[in-house]
Amino acid sequence: MKTRRDARSVRPVGVIRSGLKIRKGAPRQGSEGAPDAWLEVHAWAAKGLHRISRGDEIIVITWLHKADRRTLQVYPRSDPETLTGVFATRSPDRPNPLGLHPVTVRSIRGRRLRIGPIEAIDGTPVADIKPVLTCARAS
Amino acid sequence: MKTRRDARSVRPVGVIRSGLKIRKGAPRQGSEGAPDAWLEVHAWAAKGLHRISRGDEIIVITWLHKADRRTLQVYPRSDPETLTGVFATRSPDRPNPLGLHPVTVRSIRGRRLRIGPIEAIDGTPVADIKPVLTCARAS
Repeated sequence: MKTRRDARSVRPVGVIRSGLKIRKGAPRQGSEGAPDAWLEVHAWAAKGLHRISRGDEIIVITWLHKADRRTLQVYPRSDPETLTGVFATRSPDRPNPLGLHPVTVRSIRGRRLRIGPIEAIDGTPVADIKPVLTCARAS
Repeated sequence: MKTRRDARSVRPVGVIRSGLKIRKGAPRQGSEGAPDAWLEVHAWAAKGLHRISRGDEIIVITWLHKADRRTLQVYPRSDPETLTGVFATRSPDRPNPLGLHPVTVRSIRGRRLRIGPIEAIDGTPVADIKPVLTCARAS
């Protein structure tokens, strides 16, 4: 019988393999000169990749494992003078450190996807992969 | 000392309060005639809302608690004849049942946000809230 906590435990479906090794060196967003990286999907989840193709635009959802989950307010780059709630920012430090990364699938080798650009560091667990949001309302 | 599993456990920061009571009756996407709903942020996380304002476009990340986490392939609406990996679809049934919901903040009452449109059913846990993705590359 699973506990409720177990029922909400993120089981990584894969991992990011990147030349970015430490958080300090990582761009804040993929659009800020981030490199391409490999998304290695674990064998048990590989069936979930069926019909993902080279050139697809996808959203990779990562679990930012180096984040401080106790952080609720930060001073964002956009306004370094102004304390701001983490839900109004992209700070990796937040109660559930989920990262959203819109990327392009550059190539596919078995269960390894070459994706980018992406600012996530090497070893970052991947929680989910989705088609891009339609941006009619989000833009 | 936390176990690694505990370290990746989603602690809900809030909950969706909606007139949609059962998954069967829910639209597949917010853009498909979904209603507005309340996002009730839990007291411990309310500081994270600081500087979110009426009219903001945000992405609500839910934990789709009714999902089947064992599902890796589905027959999507877009192609009911064709078995497709869940990572190429928006199926709620997937290994980590995270939902991405771009919504507008209609109004704010303390730590309750009126948001919409959103297809998540009543009682759905909220994992995170973020500013909208820039859609320059995702669209």
